[in-house]
Amino acid sequence: MKRRLLAVDWGTSSLRGALLGDGGQVLEELQRPMGLLQVSPGGWQAAFDEAFGPWLSAWPQWRALMCGMVGSRQGWVEAPYLDCPADVRGLASKLQVLREGRHAIVPGLRCEADGVPDVMRGEETQVAGALSSLQPGEATLVLPGTHSKWVRLRGERVESFATHMTGECFALWRRHSLLSRSLPEKDAWRPEAFDAGVRRAQQPGGLLHHLFGVRSLSLFERLPEEDRGSYLSGLVIGEELRAQQIAPGLKVAIVGSDALCERYARALQQLGAQPRALGDDVTWRGLWAVAQAAGWTEGETE
Amino acid sequence: MKRRLLAVDWGTSSLRGALLGDGGQVLEELQRPMGLLQVSPGGWQAAFDEAFGPWLSAWPQWRALMCGMVGSRQGWVEAPYLDCPADVRGLASKLQVLREGRHAIVPGLRCEADGVPDVMRGEETQVAGALSSLQPGEATLVLPGTHSKWVRLRGERVESFATHMTGECFALWRRHSLLSRSLPEKDAWRPEAFDAGVRRAQQPGGLLHHLFGVRSLSLFERLPEEDRGSYLSGLVIGEELRAQQIAPGLKVAIVGSDALCERYARALQQLGAQPRALGDDVTWRGLWAVAQAAGWTEGETE
Repeated sequence: MKRRLLAVDWGTSSLRGALLGDGGQVLEELQRPMGLLQVSPGGWQAAFDEAFGPWLSAWPQWRALMCGMVGSRQGWVEAPYLDCPADVRGLASKLQVLREGRHAIVPGLRCEADGVPDVMRGEETQVAGALSSLQPGEATLVLPGTHSKWVRLRGERVESFATHMTGECFALWRRHSLLSRSLPEKDAWRPEAFDAGVRRAQQPGGLLHHLFGVRSLSLFERLPEEDRGSYLSGLVIGEELRAQQIAPGLKVAIVGSDALCERYARALQQLGAQPRALGDDVTWRGLWAVAQAAGWTEGETE
Repeated sequence: MKRRLLAVDWGTSSLRGALLGDGGQVLEELQRPMGLLQVSPGGWQAAFDEAFGPWLSAWPQWRALMCGMVGSRQGWVEAPYLDCPADVRGLASKLQVLREGRHAIVPGLRCEADGVPDVMRGEETQVAGALSSLQPGEATLVLPGTHSKWVRLRGERVESFATHMTGECFALWRRHSLLSRSLPEKDAWRPEAFDAGVRRAQQPGGLLHHLFGVRSLSLFERLPEEDRGSYLSGLVIGEELRAQQIAPGLKVAIVGSDALCERYARALQQLGAQPRALGDDVTWRGLWAVAQAAGWTEGETE
């Protein structure tokens, strides 16, 4: 009977799992709306068993490796943060083990700059999964989203990273600020308006000022209604890039949904960088890489 | 019978009025929770008559000069925007007259920089009222609030201005973002934590990144719970000041509530500027100044 790895990505709002076979190929996959926000304290084991019991009964030698908010203070068991610089071997050496060693949670990462710490939990596994897809000279990785992560690599090691609350702030302004009154209910995707927002964000004045421009441009009908959401998106992503001080020619790998990859690639190109989208299908590869480094994928039995 | 000026500040959430006598001194004042958000379309005249009728019946020769959102598109009558550079005489020449000339609304101001317009409505009257309190060399005025206004003066003329959505964004982050989970229900005022936020905002990294620092500092208990609200306030006001590129030694006059004046003065001092608080009691003086320039205060009859 072969040993199987159950790879689990257990985040804030959903639970995803994949049964991985030899070499890490995906045999089965499932997703449930059962994230940190839905699981009651003390309910993690039951939720796990309910989701994966049917699969695992066929594979007595399974082990489960998990990443994401399942390892946060509000999760199943709090997993530590590993300090940067850190690599896959380091992640594997700090697994938070539970249920007699059949389960483990990948640690998060922590770094510090200018006296302020930064953290990630879940993205470290995506980075681990992206490493094998990087090309020579790609030492900067961005994982856009609710909280975008900019990761600086040296070889296969994470040197440092920085979080930007870009996606969360966009949603707040889009739905809950004065600007929401100027925006249509549903956003269209208008690439040129997005570009204009990115350009505007590079000018002096600051984000808090540029935001008000959405209002004043709308007031004088100098920004068509259907362009406003894309312009605002460009302003906010453009501010993230301004702060990251993107050097011309910088190679940047993007890990994210197709829609976000498109936006970040456009914005990065406008600033003279060389972006390349990797997609967001890297988590299973990352869990497999960490499991390998932990020696979990060896010693298969017939 | 003397002529009286009824000065009206009619904003988004409240209606304030003052009966002004010779030289602009305040004879009576009232305030009602009857702003743009409460008055139904078409209900402006009735709301006005109900609030001020009893006063005015004693002064047949009254005139009413109004400022604020009463002149917006959703207000009583839309008043124009006057383009900068602009002075009190210009404001008086563009009054939006209604009710056979007994009422008028002060126009807002508009300016343009880098292809994007900016607007104010209501603050132009506060600026007009502050002018007589300025000292030689004070050519920069800040009116902090939901939407802070930075005004650049040349003599008694407004050259240009810039709006920052500082107060609104602070409230969004304070109450509706991930950060709200790290903050106590009620804010204490902790000046040193505020200073640390202002200092942090001057470092590279950008506001979207520094915001996440509130979370990560809290996570590792490096920012006491009671300090977090003041630190966040310092970050956001500090970002506004960073964007305004405050030169050392710059004289800045502040028009606002005592609490906001204290915060802005602290932050400006930290950046080497020379702030001076004027308080926020300038609107009646501004309306009197505009009324004088319009010739409304002349020709009193016994």
